[in-house]
Amino acid sequence: MPRIRLTVEYDGTGYAGWQRQENAVSVQQRLEEALGRLLDADVRVTGASRTDAGVHALGQVVHFDTASRIPPEKYAYALNTMLPDDIRVRASMAAADDFHARFDARGKIYRYMMFNSPHASALLRHSHAHVMYPLDAERMNEEARAVIGTHDFQAFAASGSVAKDTVRTIHDCRVVRAGDEVMLLVRGSGFLYNMVRILAGTVIQVGSGKLEKGAIDRALAGRSRLSLGVTAPPHGLTLMRVFYPDDEDEAQPCFDKILRRFHAWT
Amino acid sequence: MPRIRLTVEYDGTGYAGWQRQENAVSVQQRLEEALGRLLDADVRVTGASRTDAGVHALGQVVHFDTASRIPPEKYAYALNTMLPDDIRVRASMAAADDFHARFDARGKIYRYMMFNSPHASALLRHSHAHVMYPLDAERMNEEARAVIGTHDFQAFAASGSVAKDTVRTIHDCRVVRAGDEVMLLVRGSGFLYNMVRILAGTVIQVGSGKLEKGAIDRALAGRSRLSLGVTAPPHGLTLMRVFYPDDEDEAQPCFDKILRRFHAWT
Repeated sequence: MPRIRLTVEYDGTGYAGWQRQENAVSVQQRLEEALGRLLDADVRVTGASRTDAGVHALGQVVHFDTASRIPPEKYAYALNTMLPDDIRVRASMAAADDFHARFDARGKIYRYMMFNSPHASALLRHSHAHVMYPLDAERMNEEARAVIGTHDFQAFAASGSVAKDTVRTIHDCRVVRAGDEVMLLVRGSGFLYNMVRILAGTVIQVGSGKLEKGAIDRALAGRSRLSLGVTAPPHGLTLMRVFYPDDEDEAQPCFDKILRRFHAWT
Repeated sequence: MPRIRLTVEYDGTGYAGWQRQENAVSVQQRLEEALGRLLDADVRVTGASRTDAGVHALGQVVHFDTASRIPPEKYAYALNTMLPDDIRVRASMAAADDFHARFDARGKIYRYMMFNSPHASALLRHSHAHVMYPLDAERMNEEARAVIGTHDFQAFAASGSVAKDTVRTIHDCRVVRAGDEVMLLVRGSGFLYNMVRILAGTVIQVGSGKLEKGAIDRALAGRSRLSLGVTAPPHGLTLMRVFYPDDEDEAQPCFDKILRRFHAWT
């Protein structure tokens, strides 16, 4: 059966994560329900990343198979009429029969947003983690650079993580400030469970002086979770984009563009 | 009794507007309830702008009187522990006994945000008006400039408006694009009921080619609402800041800074 690839955006606030589960509503469930109504068939989807409860996505990638002859580009329009407004299909296209949203992924970009001010933000409360103590974004940026390269990220694997191979390559990682907002942006070959949130929590605590600089280097050397900071809350995290063999040369330009857009004035 | 001035931020999504009303919850009601609990007294507040249902604020200004001896700067912290998380006091300070949040205002900046893409945004659904047809932001900017100056804005007064004097001065008005987002930013001495939303709706329809260029000039000359576009939805609108005699020289720099932050890359 023909395979279709979707790019999906969602606000993670109202969901227990991407992955279908009992006793809680997931993004996957709502997407499969919409596809089921559209195609009058039971359709299962595979997502590139199983984002956690509260985590957002701008560029989740999904594949599914269907015998339907709806033109591939039309799925986005059709599904959006059937999905709740906190899930949007941004694009749909035909995929090779052996395309796999998760296994074919060559890299991902994640963004972690912080709102750094004595008082929390009302308007940004679902998209930014509030940090009330002053953050030194330059110190955070220096600390964050320590993850760049190929390392055994065992220390960053949350308890409950099942990965046996914990080696990953981080291609780039930056922390930048624009006004009261601080952004952590990271691009890597792959990420362990909660890895970006642990990285964010670590740079936040280094940035506020609560944790000494060099925490990441110590954690990588000793492979110990205890050298790092707390796991930052999920709502600051957004899966920005997933790259595949056909577009992985866009990865660094994409990373740079997100940085430029954010770090507006100098 | 001493007078206190607050700067208040709110997400207008869950409210029937700023102003207290029967049968619907307003921002004013929640703020007065929080003050009432804090001060164990019945406190009425006066806001600079009576924003409509669904309209947001980053810089609403409020005054109230109290015999309490809580230090003025502490109200922000105390109230934020008692307010729902979609209303935040950003700052609090002592005000002159005759300070009036509404009558002393010398000018305001409003922002209208549009998300211009075939598909709506999930993450921006509460903060941006979705416009699915392509917008020519340069044409919108040229059109928007026609409001600059001192004019009789009678055509922009929504039906239901009670203002008899409809002359206002618009100091600056710009439309800029950054990716799929388009921002209308306007600074003026004051605004009539729904004026910015009617302006936004007009530039949107000019930008999509639905309305001919020069609509604003025609409307100002003929004083006719019919020359203009539809009233744009409330959720794209944010009251950014209100200026008073003590800070009105910051108004144009503030306007320019918002523009710079947004119009990130060129």
